[in-house]
Amino acid sequence: MILIDGNKISNEIKNELAAETFEFVKNFDRKPHLAAILVGNDGASETYVGHKVKSCEQVGFFSTLIRLENNCSESELLQKIEKINNDPEVDGLIVQLPLPSHISEQKVIETINPAKDVDGFHPVNVGRMVIGLPSYIPATPFGILELIKRYEIQTDGKHCVVLGRSNIVGKPISILMSRKSYPGNCTVTLCHSRTVDLPDVLRQADILIVALGNPEFVKANMVKENAVVIDVGITRVKSDKTKSGWKLLGDVKFEEVAEKCSFITPVPGGVGPMTIVSLLRNTLFAARKEIY
Amino acid sequence: MILIDGNKISNEIKNELAAETFEFVKNFDRKPHLAAILVGNDGASETYVGHKVKSCEQVGFFSTLIRLENNCSESELLQKIEKINNDPEVDGLIVQLPLPSHISEQKVIETINPAKDVDGFHPVNVGRMVIGLPSYIPATPFGILELIKRYEIQTDGKHCVVLGRSNIVGKPISILMSRKSYPGNCTVTLCHSRTVDLPDVLRQADILIVALGNPEFVKANMVKENAVVIDVGITRVKSDKTKSGWKLLGDVKFEEVAEKCSFITPVPGGVGPMTIVSLLRNTLFAARKEIY
Repeated sequence: MILIDGNKISNEIKNELAAETFEFVKNFDRKPHLAAILVGNDGASETYVGHKVKSCEQVGFFSTLIRLENNCSESELLQKIEKINNDPEVDGLIVQLPLPSHISEQKVIETINPAKDVDGFHPVNVGRMVIGLPSYIPATPFGILELIKRYEIQTDGKHCVVLGRSNIVGKPISILMSRKSYPGNCTVTLCHSRTVDLPDVLRQADILIVALGNPEFVKANMVKENAVVIDVGITRVKSDKTKSGWKLLGDVKFEEVAEKCSFITPVPGGVGPMTIVSLLRNTLFAARKEIY
Repeated sequence: MILIDGNKISNEIKNELAAETFEFVKNFDRKPHLAAILVGNDGASETYVGHKVKSCEQVGFFSTLIRLENNCSESELLQKIEKINNDPEVDGLIVQLPLPSHISEQKVIETINPAKDVDGFHPVNVGRMVIGLPSYIPATPFGILELIKRYEIQTDGKHCVVLGRSNIVGKPISILMSRKSYPGNCTVTLCHSRTVDLPDVLRQADILIVALGNPEFVKANMVKENAVVIDVGITRVKSDKTKSGWKLLGDVKFEEVAEKCSFITPVPGGVGPMTIVSLLRNTLFAARKEIY
């Protein structure tokens, strides 16, 4: 069994990004620039945005964090987005989700200029990804593809089973894994809450990608011998064995599944660390105008 | 075995569209208007466009056929599209494909105003479909959904296997059949040329949708007893048994597969007739501004 080390790979990629950024700065006399908008003071959102800003600094990007009050109006936020859309000094723009309930997330996403939408959530980017045109691939699926590449996992003709049909993970990764490319060329099965005989379906997987948000849902008897298991889930649960009183669990019952696998991602330290570097990679694509 | 009668259903839908169009004309004092652009004189394209124009008349739409010479430039075509994009009297616009090789089909598709893109090929419409937002669904997948609805075929929790990963049929129908909706909520497997042990995968299908373009590829031993079989293929092959010297074949070997099925579409007369009524339905959506 090979443990897929997301921390190690994400550090490697950060080093690569730093080197490419150095070149970029030399050529264009400016840094790639990511702008992030944070509405309100949600603790988890603060943490995520903080990590993103810090990672920008690590690789040599410039970043701007724009804070809006929790009670800011939708039109105020949309105006701010429009301003950044039209600012030639900003390459990428993300709006940290979730947003307060009085603001339409979909409207916000559709207001971002697709060329700056480094989260890859805008319908234009989703559509271009499906059709096979250059696009910003959302951070989590992008990170999964990168792990598969770096560990040289074979995908051609393999049966990839994806559990979970979310817009940000399940649907895009199912589309990407069936593409005529590497990673890709898999026979892909997309499963979800309505799937009948789920264990039977999961056991068919040569590559199993789980993005349910249901801690330790996947047990050893649902996994084929020598499968590749990618665990996207990350849930904080109470624990009396840690100092903090909390621990993080994936969607896969790691201690019993790991020994059956050819490759497996741990939680934490698997897919998680890859998401921020994917965002950085998209921002560098944006700065270099490689997608649009 | 129930034969899915696409001719009958498409006629029913034409009658419904005619009634709705009558109401539309009464309320808005104008007819829904579809514009079609045909470049060159390809025989098959002439026939397809001719059918679309005729069907518009049948349901009471106004239609405009714009013909451009085979040697017209890309920019000439794009200008024509821009003009129609800005014409408030045109609701829907289609450009008949394929185009001459000196013109980029992708650029043409992306130039059409998504609100008038009743073929549903623009990345915005593809992306909105994937995310689950209102969009124009491409004609063939739309027609398949409609046949499933009209025959009240159960889909919830069923295993739907899609054979073929094209942008206009395989990919979109695989996404649509996995959506949280009816038709939908299927466990969906997308297969293609790289799929290993294809007959084993196909035999798992409760609902089998075949869009390969490979005549009579699917044999009886690849189909589960009581499966629903939707055959999208339509290939013209030589025949000494018909007056014309030609006959149309689907991707499914009908005479041996049909008897195993609970439902099956014939070729011709199955999915084919549904595509034009889907285009008309999208055009009426456009006229009523129901999507955008």
